[in-house]
Amino acid sequence: MNNGKMHIIPLGGLDQIGMNITAFEYNNDIIVVDCGLAFPEDDMLGIDLVIPDTAFLEDNAEKVRGFVITHGHEDHIGAIPYVLQKLDVPVYATRLTMALIENKLEEHLMMDKTERHVVTVGENLSFGSLCVEYIRTNHSISDSCALAITSPVGTIIHTGDFKVDYTPVFGDPIDLSRFAELGSRGVLALLCDSTNAEREGFTNSERTVGHAFDTIFSENRKSRIIVATFSSNVDRVQQIIDAAEHYGRKVALEGRSMRNITKTAIEMGFLRIPDGLLIELSQIYDYSDSEIVLITTGSQGESMAALSRIASSMHKSISIRPGDVVVFSSNPIPGNEKAVFKVINELSAKGAKVIFQDTHVSGHACREEIKLIYTLVKPKFAIPVHGEHRHLMAQRDIATEVGIPPENVFILSCGQVLELDRDEAKVVGEVPAGAVFVDGLGVGDVGNVVLRDRQRLSQDGIVIVCITLLPGENIVTSGPLVMSRGFVYIKESDEFMDEATDVVVEALNKMRDRNITSRVKIRDGIRDALSSFIWKRIKRSPIILPILMEEDETAI
Amino acid sequence: MNNGKMHIIPLGGLDQIGMNITAFEYNNDIIVVDCGLAFPEDDMLGIDLVIPDTAFLEDNAEKVRGFVITHGHEDHIGAIPYVLQKLDVPVYATRLTMALIENKLEEHLMMDKTERHVVTVGENLSFGSLCVEYIRTNHSISDSCALAITSPVGTIIHTGDFKVDYTPVFGDPIDLSRFAELGSRGVLALLCDSTNAEREGFTNSERTVGHAFDTIFSENRKSRIIVATFSSNVDRVQQIIDAAEHYGRKVALEGRSMRNITKTAIEMGFLRIPDGLLIELSQIYDYSDSEIVLITTGSQGESMAALSRIASSMHKSISIRPGDVVVFSSNPIPGNEKAVFKVINELSAKGAKVIFQDTHVSGHACREEIKLIYTLVKPKFAIPVHGEHRHLMAQRDIATEVGIPPENVFILSCGQVLELDRDEAKVVGEVPAGAVFVDGLGVGDVGNVVLRDRQRLSQDGIVIVCITLLPGENIVTSGPLVMSRGFVYIKESDEFMDEATDVVVEALNKMRDRNITSRVKIRDGIRDALSSFIWKRIKRSPIILPILMEEDETAI
Repeated sequence: MNNGKMHIIPLGGLDQIGMNITAFEYNNDIIVVDCGLAFPEDDMLGIDLVIPDTAFLEDNAEKVRGFVITHGHEDHIGAIPYVLQKLDVPVYATRLTMALIENKLEEHLMMDKTERHVVTVGENLSFGSLCVEYIRTNHSISDSCALAITSPVGTIIHTGDFKVDYTPVFGDPIDLSRFAELGSRGVLALLCDSTNAEREGFTNSERTVGHAFDTIFSENRKSRIIVATFSSNVDRVQQIIDAAEHYGRKVALEGRSMRNITKTAIEMGFLRIPDGLLIELSQIYDYSDSEIVLITTGSQGESMAALSRIASSMHKSISIRPGDVVVFSSNPIPGNEKAVFKVINELSAKGAKVIFQDTHVSGHACREEIKLIYTLVKPKFAIPVHGEHRHLMAQRDIATEVGIPPENVFILSCGQVLELDRDEAKVVGEVPAGAVFVDGLGVGDVGNVVLRDRQRLSQDGIVIVCITLLPGENIVTSGPLVMSRGFVYIKESDEFMDEATDVVVEALNKMRDRNITSRVKIRDGIRDALSSFIWKRIKRSPIILPILMEEDETAI
Repeated sequence: MNNGKMHIIPLGGLDQIGMNITAFEYNNDIIVVDCGLAFPEDDMLGIDLVIPDTAFLEDNAEKVRGFVITHGHEDHIGAIPYVLQKLDVPVYATRLTMALIENKLEEHLMMDKTERHVVTVGENLSFGSLCVEYIRTNHSISDSCALAITSPVGTIIHTGDFKVDYTPVFGDPIDLSRFAELGSRGVLALLCDSTNAEREGFTNSERTVGHAFDTIFSENRKSRIIVATFSSNVDRVQQIIDAAEHYGRKVALEGRSMRNITKTAIEMGFLRIPDGLLIELSQIYDYSDSEIVLITTGSQGESMAALSRIASSMHKSISIRPGDVVVFSSNPIPGNEKAVFKVINELSAKGAKVIFQDTHVSGHACREEIKLIYTLVKPKFAIPVHGEHRHLMAQRDIATEVGIPPENVFILSCGQVLELDRDEAKVVGEVPAGAVFVDGLGVGDVGNVVLRDRQRLSQDGIVIVCITLLPGENIVTSGPLVMSRGFVYIKESDEFMDEATDVVVEALNKMRDRNITSRVKIRDGIRDALSSFIWKRIKRSPIILPILMEEDETAI
């Protein structure tokens, strides 16, 4: 209960980049905008996915009216199947977005038990005291929307991820008029995409990429052409298909998500492919090189994706031949550069011509577009969202440039509660929020202790010492046996392991002389002796795990 | 013995990027150009450094006349102390380069036993049938040189790492006239730096960075200024110092390599600092913010470097305050982007203004400079060096553009032997070459098996099963005890580990019923049962290590 005030609570977001999920709470009603996952950082060893901690929503389950989703990217929809296992709440989204969500729900066998509502732009949804209107935007996936969330204290606009594209490949340009109308009536707060807030100017129209493809297809008429791009960028796929049609080539698709999303987009009418243009992968050798385009996943150098497998000769049916043209229709996401360059090097070593410039535009608004939205919406308060800290700070600078007082700009950390009424906004508290790790089928069973161990294991491995003792005494009946994994190459180091065994025996003898029988002390004594020996000899710090067993008993 | 032919053998280089080391062999004489190390790739877990395998040189030790070093960067000198432990060979280098080599030799206590020769540009060194002349170039470290290597079959030019800087901050521009003279007399082969072969145009002069600093210092007169850059870029440090002097600021240095290299450069006269300008780090709080510049390491986001420690509040004496200006005078090296952005985000969250544009120029030649060198040198054969495969391919395109026949361009892998005489060149074989891992004090004791284990440990951890058996029989006297590290969070999973123990007991019982007593079979049986249980339950593949002990014996 918040007594006639609005609460905005990011449950992912800053410090938990990628997990886009924000709760809007007014008295007894909560709606949640988006429900995304993050991909693990380099130090999250072995983790497959990162999803938001939704304890706050679970604690307030009876108030949560629905998930309203802005668009179908993983960082906005990926956690839905996990979160809905704990919250029985309806999901709202536009057509294509809902179709992508349904693909996920089907995979998790959750279609039957999930209430779903397909929304059209302009529609008004009512959630108790809160109203939500979907507004058309442009982005690197079709059917993206901004949201106008109206509560008794005012209207809040959440842009979702957006750019301004006056000439979109499919559908309408962003509905700037609606932003303007809402702005004229008065907008309490704006949550605006910050991804490109450091970049000057405007993001180019998706259509410009079509011209680049045209040039590439025209200049490489005799070569087989392979294009790697994001499977979710349906308009990009459309433009590659258009170029293929124009230059008389057939199109094959490779990569699981490329085939899945393209299939969905065709069914929903977001992708128009002339009859007979699309062929199966197995058919490509029925055509000459000049008649083929392959559209594939793997533009980020992901090691298991189709393009990486093709580049490293691990693909079952496609191998690179000198003269092939490979187009990266993407920019490396920060952190993926090395992986992308590795693939480019492999392709280039096999004689392919690799093109990775001018065939990509961003899906996010640059500085001038952000200024345009601020100028139309004229919000009282600004809450930069979607980006690293440097991006949010850059948007703060833009907001103050266009006249928002600096004290009205809020950069919220994950879990912070921003309270607003008609006149003021302030951070009033914090709710539990953060990241939950998904590893295999385990959700939340890998925490920081396990990650710290994996970190140490990955650096210096593990040394295990096994000893069986007489019950309660310090008399060895078996062992010590010293083994290791990930530590040193054993055959080279037999002598080293013998010495390590001697060190353990010596430590045990010393403890026996001092009548030490405590298992905890014996374990500590072994660990200390061995780690100091190893550090002195080779300056490494493996995990040392002394295991003490007792005859006829399990270990202590 | 190669019967009057020249052999060029890269012992690092392609596929072993960063380790620059190339052997030139003519009959009974071998000289080695450079002796660099590489930093570990992401999948080389726990590895500190990578050095070249010099088995070929050791096998031919009596022929090796010397190491001739082009410049003082780690990827050209870093392996010297390791390699000289196996080869007693003199080292040749220019003054600053030699001083940096000597810093390394001192650290490894190898000064006394290493024969060293300081070389000046223009000087001719004689190594039996081979002659070496040092030629002035420009690069991102002072005192860099190209080499003209003359044998009875012709002259080969190795550019080292270079750019063309007509207005260097210190010393002379690259000696284009000498390249031209040698070209007029006839050059058999050119080994040319490929790093920027994909980039159009010319690399800007180092001096342009000075103008950028001037603007930054002038626009931020009241703020404390912190500049992060490469410690080895002495000219860059000079320009920061010049700006500091001009704007009345004192300069403090932070970071071990920054202090060491700067000290060496001052002693050698490569860095000119007015008396009293340099202050100790501890003195910075004696001055106001507007009177201070801090020059620090960590421009690549290296986690232990000074700037990262400052950004994450781990530095003992410097903490970021709102209003501080932090300049990244560097570009992220591919692979370091995320680490750099992490530091920028931390700095920005603490209120610092971060500047990371226009304050860096590359040290490597772009396409037009490479064309210039080819046009002056007019080599018969071209051997692109220094770069990933895509860079070497880009230089190959340049070489053919300026008239080298494609069949005269050779892209050599590590260990390949290119044989040249006056008329032809061809790859005639391969020598052992590759990477040796340095981990702590261990050189070469971590190989692929250990790395593969570390990889698995880092992803899913390890599960250890300890059992003591009666000698020769399948009767358990102690255990089974199941333990894990880096696998799942134990307290959450006691039940899971109990089930795992049951699985082991069941497997043991089954084997006892079948009278299986072979230790190998018992171990395999336990491993199979447990890994299948774990995969079914949580889709993970930890390393499973069954340890069988016998009473009164060590394990088998």
